[in-house]
Amino acid sequence: MGDATDPRFVRSRAAILDAARELLLAKGPSAVTHQQIAEHAGIGRATVYRHWPRTDQLLAEAMATVPMPFFDEPTSPYRDWLTSQLTAIAHQLEHDDVLAVTTTLAGSALWDPAMDARRAGFAEILTARLAAALQDAEQRKELAPRTTTGTAAAMAIGPIYYRATIERAPADAELIEQCVASSGDWTAP
Amino acid sequence: MGDATDPRFVRSRAAILDAARELLLAKGPSAVTHQQIAEHAGIGRATVYRHWPRTDQLLAEAMATVPMPFFDEPTSPYRDWLTSQLTAIAHQLEHDDVLAVTTTLAGSALWDPAMDARRAGFAEILTARLAAALQDAEQRKELAPRTTTGTAAAMAIGPIYYRATIERAPADAELIEQCVASSGDWTAP
Repeated sequence: MGDATDPRFVRSRAAILDAARELLLAKGPSAVTHQQIAEHAGIGRATVYRHWPRTDQLLAEAMATVPMPFFDEPTSPYRDWLTSQLTAIAHQLEHDDVLAVTTTLAGSALWDPAMDARRAGFAEILTARLAAALQDAEQRKELAPRTTTGTAAAMAIGPIYYRATIERAPADAELIEQCVASSGDWTAP
Repeated sequence: MGDATDPRFVRSRAAILDAARELLLAKGPSAVTHQQIAEHAGIGRATVYRHWPRTDQLLAEAMATVPMPFFDEPTSPYRDWLTSQLTAIAHQLEHDDVLAVTTTLAGSALWDPAMDARRAGFAEILTARLAAALQDAEQRKELAPRTTTGTAAAMAIGPIYYRATIERAPADAELIEQCVASSGDWTAP
């Protein structure tokens, strides 16, 4: 392996990750090969192999740089906050690159422990943040919840995720409103 | 690639799909390899590779040509019927092979028009069948619906699909009950 303090090493690593993300977006995960990354990034194939001997590890790394901004910093009124968060998730899932990364993560997690750890990390953050927000909403008497800590994320995000990946259509305001309503009965603060 | 109008090409393609389905049923998805398909179908391994370079796409194709059993033939009481159908879907999604095919289908649909057509076919069947069943339930005064034709499938199946693919945990009775409840207010017939 090269030296992480060597600027050429750092540069080629960044170029490889960029190329991997671009190939994933354009052609799907099967296009993320050492050969295609080398051509796309304009560097030698041996350099790609030196950084990532296996492309599945490279894919996982490329995906790990996708930020997880959702359900952070909840604010009252919680109903409006949840609506805006679910709308933001729905908009993200309208981008083919986000969808490609999400389905690749979900698929590779079945046979790759490193990818499974990343999947679990994402899922746990979403579950914990949403549960904490809905608990706050309940304490402020804005929500009489119908979901629990264990089901809140699946009930709120699941329909939007299904709409994006299986129905391949935008989550409209009607669907998002039903997702918000599935959390329980809302009262204006 | 061969020519879809060449009868030998069409025959070998059908033989490969038959072999893939038979191997899948008999021995599970790990048996669906190029080598085993070639032996089972009695054709050359190179021919299998020519038709399907990747076995996950072949698996998805083989499973997509299997009839979709869910939401077929609804019966009163519709609430019980919906609970049993969603439980059956949840159980299917606990099998890694079904999950692999589902995520492969959802992923490849992003860059492969043929896979996208299969995805759309599945989604439309689920939407149409569930909408028809919930309409029957409404006419028999068993349901005061909260969803519409466009949202019913996403609201009922989405959380179970999210639980299986993103949270990688079984959909328990609590989650399924909340999915059933998201369809509307139920009354015993």
